[in-house]
Amino acid sequence: MTTTATRSWWGWGTTDQALPDDECAGLAGLLPGLPARPRPVPDVRDLVLPPTRIAPPSTLPVTTDPAARAARAFGKAYRDVVRALSGDLAGAPDAVARPATEAEVVDLLDWAAASDVVVVPVGGGSSVVGGVEYRGDRPWLALELTALDRVLEVDPVSRAARIQGGALGPVLEAQLRPHGLTLRHFPQSFEFSTLGGWLATRAGGHYATLHTHVDDLVESLRVVTPVGVNESWRLPGSGAGPSPDRLFLGSEGILGVLTEAWMRLQDRPRWKASASATFTGATAAFDAVRAIAQAGLHPANCRLLDPGEAALAGASSGEWVLVLGVESAVHPVAGRLAELTDLARAHGGRVADAPGAGDAAADAWRSSFLRMPYVRDGLARMSALVETFETACTWDRLEELYATVRAEVGDAVARVTGAPGLVNCRLTHVYPDGAAPYFTVLAAGRPGAEVAMWDEVKAAASEVLGRLGATITHHHAVGRDHRPGYDRQRPEPFAVALRATKSALDPAGVLNPGVLLDELPAGR
Amino acid sequence: MTTTATRSWWGWGTTDQALPDDECAGLAGLLPGLPARPRPVPDVRDLVLPPTRIAPPSTLPVTTDPAARAARAFGKAYRDVVRALSGDLAGAPDAVARPATEAEVVDLLDWAAASDVVVVPVGGGSSVVGGVEYRGDRPWLALELTALDRVLEVDPVSRAARIQGGALGPVLEAQLRPHGLTLRHFPQSFEFSTLGGWLATRAGGHYATLHTHVDDLVESLRVVTPVGVNESWRLPGSGAGPSPDRLFLGSEGILGVLTEAWMRLQDRPRWKASASATFTGATAAFDAVRAIAQAGLHPANCRLLDPGEAALAGASSGEWVLVLGVESAVHPVAGRLAELTDLARAHGGRVADAPGAGDAAADAWRSSFLRMPYVRDGLARMSALVETFETACTWDRLEELYATVRAEVGDAVARVTGAPGLVNCRLTHVYPDGAAPYFTVLAAGRPGAEVAMWDEVKAAASEVLGRLGATITHHHAVGRDHRPGYDRQRPEPFAVALRATKSALDPAGVLNPGVLLDELPAGR
Repeated sequence: MTTTATRSWWGWGTTDQALPDDECAGLAGLLPGLPARPRPVPDVRDLVLPPTRIAPPSTLPVTTDPAARAARAFGKAYRDVVRALSGDLAGAPDAVARPATEAEVVDLLDWAAASDVVVVPVGGGSSVVGGVEYRGDRPWLALELTALDRVLEVDPVSRAARIQGGALGPVLEAQLRPHGLTLRHFPQSFEFSTLGGWLATRAGGHYATLHTHVDDLVESLRVVTPVGVNESWRLPGSGAGPSPDRLFLGSEGILGVLTEAWMRLQDRPRWKASASATFTGATAAFDAVRAIAQAGLHPANCRLLDPGEAALAGASSGEWVLVLGVESAVHPVAGRLAELTDLARAHGGRVADAPGAGDAAADAWRSSFLRMPYVRDGLARMSALVETFETACTWDRLEELYATVRAEVGDAVARVTGAPGLVNCRLTHVYPDGAAPYFTVLAAGRPGAEVAMWDEVKAAASEVLGRLGATITHHHAVGRDHRPGYDRQRPEPFAVALRATKSALDPAGVLNPGVLLDELPAGR
Repeated sequence: MTTTATRSWWGWGTTDQALPDDECAGLAGLLPGLPARPRPVPDVRDLVLPPTRIAPPSTLPVTTDPAARAARAFGKAYRDVVRALSGDLAGAPDAVARPATEAEVVDLLDWAAASDVVVVPVGGGSSVVGGVEYRGDRPWLALELTALDRVLEVDPVSRAARIQGGALGPVLEAQLRPHGLTLRHFPQSFEFSTLGGWLATRAGGHYATLHTHVDDLVESLRVVTPVGVNESWRLPGSGAGPSPDRLFLGSEGILGVLTEAWMRLQDRPRWKASASATFTGATAAFDAVRAIAQAGLHPANCRLLDPGEAALAGASSGEWVLVLGVESAVHPVAGRLAELTDLARAHGGRVADAPGAGDAAADAWRSSFLRMPYVRDGLARMSALVETFETACTWDRLEELYATVRAEVGDAVARVTGAPGLVNCRLTHVYPDGAAPYFTVLAAGRPGAEVAMWDEVKAAASEVLGRLGATITHHHAVGRDHRPGYDRQRPEPFAVALRATKSALDPAGVLNPGVLLDELPAGR
């Protein structure tokens, strides 16, 4: 999976995968109100970068090259893409660092603290929540770790590997494959995000049940903090005090830089089977998925599409569609799949007689899944509002949440665009006590006003999630965009604890300020 | 399971279950060197309590009653029992508080902070690691929560309940039973420990695989800290920042008092099946258990006894014994049990032809399991050294750890007692990447010297665990007894963070000082 393709400075992934202008124009039929042709992509060489405000010593692996700075000006949210297309690079980093060793990471943090330069660890740069973009007044440095991308050690007996934080998904999987092992963590950003980024944001991955987040795949962490290196022991389980790893999981770069982790691995699955079922109405569909989630069967896949989402995927008309998948490296899985489809039937599901061949169907879905962000970029060029947001809540509140979010976000879309849009939903991950709905919004925007329009829709979404006690993010992280929702959700004593921890581990306040916590004023 | 029996002030559980003198004497045959008769149990009314140093206002639910203070002088470790039998109550609390409402907990913490009185939340008081006994110079209060013991709310749809922190195991299960639900968290201390105590110590429970600790059963927590109430939202999963709950799980009372939690529940199992297998040699036995732990089958029970432990349990002679159990509320489990026993056979196991009837065998084992601490107390009265310690490590190190611990702890026993003792082992919990060995030490001690002798053996055990990178505790917690091992294991930046958090949430430093962190000097 090595690629020589060029990373896009303005949109998702690589430039060779971006939709050509004609394909963008072809999307005009999707929604009334879209223009006939896409807006052009500016040539980054024509854009004005603000002068850099820092002069790092030449001994540090830091560049002020304009192309590198422009490429790190934004994350990969819809609003980032729109802003990039508008050509405004005023917020670009003053420099980009790309250390090749952990010692260089330490040196960088020391220099940054002494020089009052903000450091934003950017992982693969694929944040969709404003996690990799500094919004304050100090000079700042985007810290790339992608040169630290090796699998350093494999323990085949315990099925674990020590992996550097900068390894992109395909890079680490390619190194594990010769050992017959896999991490099996496949977020949508898999190709363009790093292990360290996954850990820092508590990313959601392959498994729809049980080990839904990367958190549970962690055996130990190594984190460079400004006050020293934090390395936990490799332990399968422990009861020794609060988990040190859980403090850094989800810390989004405000406490330190994740340079290595021992990760729990899987044998490559030998048996796979999948099936689908359709349901009439939300109640039946949610009841079926809940029964499956509470039966202790732990399917690898358990994805429920609402009728709108199913229609977009070409899967069904007017029905809910549940896709189930089971896998094992040790035992045939037909029996487990039958137990799952029996539960679907018992709750009114119509199970497809001939489920698609496991691998082919899964590959097709995965390929389309990985393609979605490129389509989003094409739609963004067509001035559509096109974005997703995700949450989680307990089962007792799910149906109300689903209806209320669709109604209120739909109202917000109609208010800002003057026309109805689509608000679709799928459940991406399910739990014995609840589920994680993932909403997609699609509407025609007004060229030049898209960011403001989306921000208003997003504010409505965040408001209803908070009011109903649903999390502001299930796996996209908090970043800067989710701060109001996060502040509402986070218990105040925990905020006190996190501030105290931040001050103790990052006394100069240089690590990703503004994420999770307010940036402290100068001279604090 | 309501009982009118009296709790023992010196030993485990209730007085009616303690071994009578003759039964204690009958244990003399177990080991050479034991005396013919047990030491007497002092009458607590004859013992001298230090004068109380505090005069709490009468509006607070605090008593200085001598019996209440004596009952809270010690936890329930072996060394606690021996010290209690010696009649030394010098370390007893100055008073005991038993709030009936959360508001009273708040008032107590406010008063304690203003009066510089240490507060030790004692849960059920069953700590075996010195977690409920203050060893500093300030006056101290034992805080009992057992009046806060109600199941306040049940959500049958999401299978969760809001439960007060002071509920003992049988008390909360009795309230869940009418709903057809169960927490299914059964530590050995089940009858005498509380939900809040389990959460504060990351207790290990019923499940040998997957959800081994109570941590994973938590949906949300409510914690009274000295700076305010910390309440997290009920969420099945979230990626919003570091988990606030994971900061309080394992915090052992140093950050706040756990007054309520929403806990994830199970349907009561309808199908159960169990089987056993025997193995020759550690290598074959560990390989079999590892294969099972890595197969994704998640047996509820997967307990491996070494030959010494099996012999003590009357199960086998010279062989390793593996006990497997599967349970489900939804599906028959015979197929899963067969998959497990096939794996055992494939790794050289001889599977018993007629596995014991699931319930009867499990009940017998459970009854014997719950009886063990009473036998320990009987042996303690016979001046035996009799204690357990537990750990966890990855599979690649397990066989070396097993051999080295047995050798070095055996040497320590021989050195301090002048004769060989028993050092047995079982695996209580297993993971895809490792296992949790639980060691039992049994040797003849010298009357009057038992605590010093045990402390020397324990120091040897802690030293070898730390040297081999195995955790100082898998589920017994840190308390005061495990501090040196914990300090060795805990990454230093995490210690910095924990100290900062402690200072921010408990500025007066009154909550369980000395546990997890050093007590700050007066006038800090």
